[in-house]
Amino acid sequence: MNIIGIDLGGTKLLGIRADEDGKVLAEDRVPTLAHEGPDRVIDRIIDMIGRLAKAGPVDAIGIDVPGPADPFKGIVYGPPNLPGWPEKGVHLLQIAKDRLGYGDKVSLTLVNDANASALAEYSYGAGAEKFMGKKIRHLVFLTISTGIGGGVIIDGKLLLGANGFAAELGHVIIDAFGYRCSCGSAGCFEAMASGTALAREGALIVASRRPTLMADMAGGDPDKVDAKVVSEAAQKGDPAALALMEREGMLVGVGVTNFVHTFNPEVVVLGGGVTHAGDLLFKPARATVESRIMPAYRGTFEIVSAVLGDKSAALGAVAAAVTGDGRR
Amino acid sequence: MNIIGIDLGGTKLLGIRADEDGKVLAEDRVPTLAHEGPDRVIDRIIDMIGRLAKAGPVDAIGIDVPGPADPFKGIVYGPPNLPGWPEKGVHLLQIAKDRLGYGDKVSLTLVNDANASALAEYSYGAGAEKFMGKKIRHLVFLTISTGIGGGVIIDGKLLLGANGFAAELGHVIIDAFGYRCSCGSAGCFEAMASGTALAREGALIVASRRPTLMADMAGGDPDKVDAKVVSEAAQKGDPAALALMEREGMLVGVGVTNFVHTFNPEVVVLGGGVTHAGDLLFKPARATVESRIMPAYRGTFEIVSAVLGDKSAALGAVAAAVTGDGRR
Repeated sequence: MNIIGIDLGGTKLLGIRADEDGKVLAEDRVPTLAHEGPDRVIDRIIDMIGRLAKAGPVDAIGIDVPGPADPFKGIVYGPPNLPGWPEKGVHLLQIAKDRLGYGDKVSLTLVNDANASALAEYSYGAGAEKFMGKKIRHLVFLTISTGIGGGVIIDGKLLLGANGFAAELGHVIIDAFGYRCSCGSAGCFEAMASGTALAREGALIVASRRPTLMADMAGGDPDKVDAKVVSEAAQKGDPAALALMEREGMLVGVGVTNFVHTFNPEVVVLGGGVTHAGDLLFKPARATVESRIMPAYRGTFEIVSAVLGDKSAALGAVAAAVTGDGRR
Repeated sequence: MNIIGIDLGGTKLLGIRADEDGKVLAEDRVPTLAHEGPDRVIDRIIDMIGRLAKAGPVDAIGIDVPGPADPFKGIVYGPPNLPGWPEKGVHLLQIAKDRLGYGDKVSLTLVNDANASALAEYSYGAGAEKFMGKKIRHLVFLTISTGIGGGVIIDGKLLLGANGFAAELGHVIIDAFGYRCSCGSAGCFEAMASGTALAREGALIVASRRPTLMADMAGGDPDKVDAKVVSEAAQKGDPAALALMEREGMLVGVGVTNFVHTFNPEVVVLGGGVTHAGDLLFKPARATVESRIMPAYRGTFEIVSAVLGDKSAALGAVAAAVTGDGRR
């Protein structure tokens, strides 16, 4: 099979041509230029599909988007980092179908980006047989980056819920009395443990003028502290940054515990920029899970790193197009 | 069909004979006498099945248990309120099969009690077509009582996970820095919002000697404050108790928000003793959900009361035996 996967991100648009085993045959990248609004962004998606389709026949197309999407209706609901996309929804699949003119010969599938990455890691990545050493059927994926996204595979199928909105794991509240979240709620996993949250904690320390490598690295400017500054300072042994990474790992461990208790998966796959800190994050995360998990779950799951990197969502769009997950 | 459903509780053993539509044809109750240990409790289960089977043919038997259970293997893992049941597990289904002597003619199904109640409310109760006015496929059930239990229906099937341990929704952490939980973790939904947690908050106020109806009702003894005392004092207008019910509703709302973001269900069914407080609980819970839910989810779900009462788990054991959910 020849499948096209399109990963619509807030800054870049990535398209791949792949076979049903996730082998990438061609690749295409352009800036999203999201500020130009939905019509121009959709133009770029259609153009990219056209370029990728030139090389040969197309059997299916999958598109992933950075926000709530109804895969059954093919509608995208105002992704926060795509300005101008209305909250009431854009019928992306219908528009693409009309403009591509393939009719019913080529199936079109819509999927949320974190769900896509979950499906990709399950099908081709950390959850696949070649990495796990066995076939698994239940997986939880978390990407911990500027925000936190999630996706869940239950008995081999993507968890979608009634409207395809399920698995918004970054907006599970882990501190009922916690920090305000960008979603309007407070204490969400994302508000407490994302890279943005980690940067906020680092900035508070720099602003307090406590001696820390983070201040040197950010030129004394709290606004210049990002998650990378915190993790690099910790890597160099800065005590304040180390304490923050310990806290970050604890909070990630709380999230992992929650999703193990919720889904009883065989594997939890962690991806996203914050996980590049490696053991600084994974050690306290694992220790937290170890101390908070209920006895019956011990030995039933593994916590592993994502392996597909920045192509995971595009590969997930391919996987969604192959399996039919994400549409009806 | 003639199905027997056995609800093994910490204090009572309830057995019913029902048809596949959940119509109860006979009923049997005895005390569990859990302190006598697993062998005697299993004797009582076998005896009860024998009594219920006397009236006519039996097609299937479902048993629900108050703790972690592997429905695929038929094993019960040391339920906290069944003393003497080992953590390494009791092969309840195999034992029952051997002792009943039905061979393969009668299927035996094991299910966790909260999962059973979820399945019952979905099949015969608040989530059924006659109550919802439409067919639904996605439901979250929460029972808020001494502890908090949960069960989830996804696309018409019970969420079980890899070992049947999924949906331990009472042990999703909603306050990473919160109170110790009986499970060993801290800040679990159960530790923060169960009837036991509500009683703890009431007891703290009574112990502080602030004037409150709760003190009068408990004879000034903090140990005599239970969830019912708090809710009855609130019903009578006691300001301290009203504030606690407001907090309780907020915390329940946090949990409901989490599970809507996780599962995107069409309905959230709330049962258990604490929900008998009615509007005192539901009003702040709904207000919290309203303010914390993400825009895309608005109008996609309802929050309703459970309708099956204390027979829900036994009916769920029947439903599990009918659908095959809870075994393989």
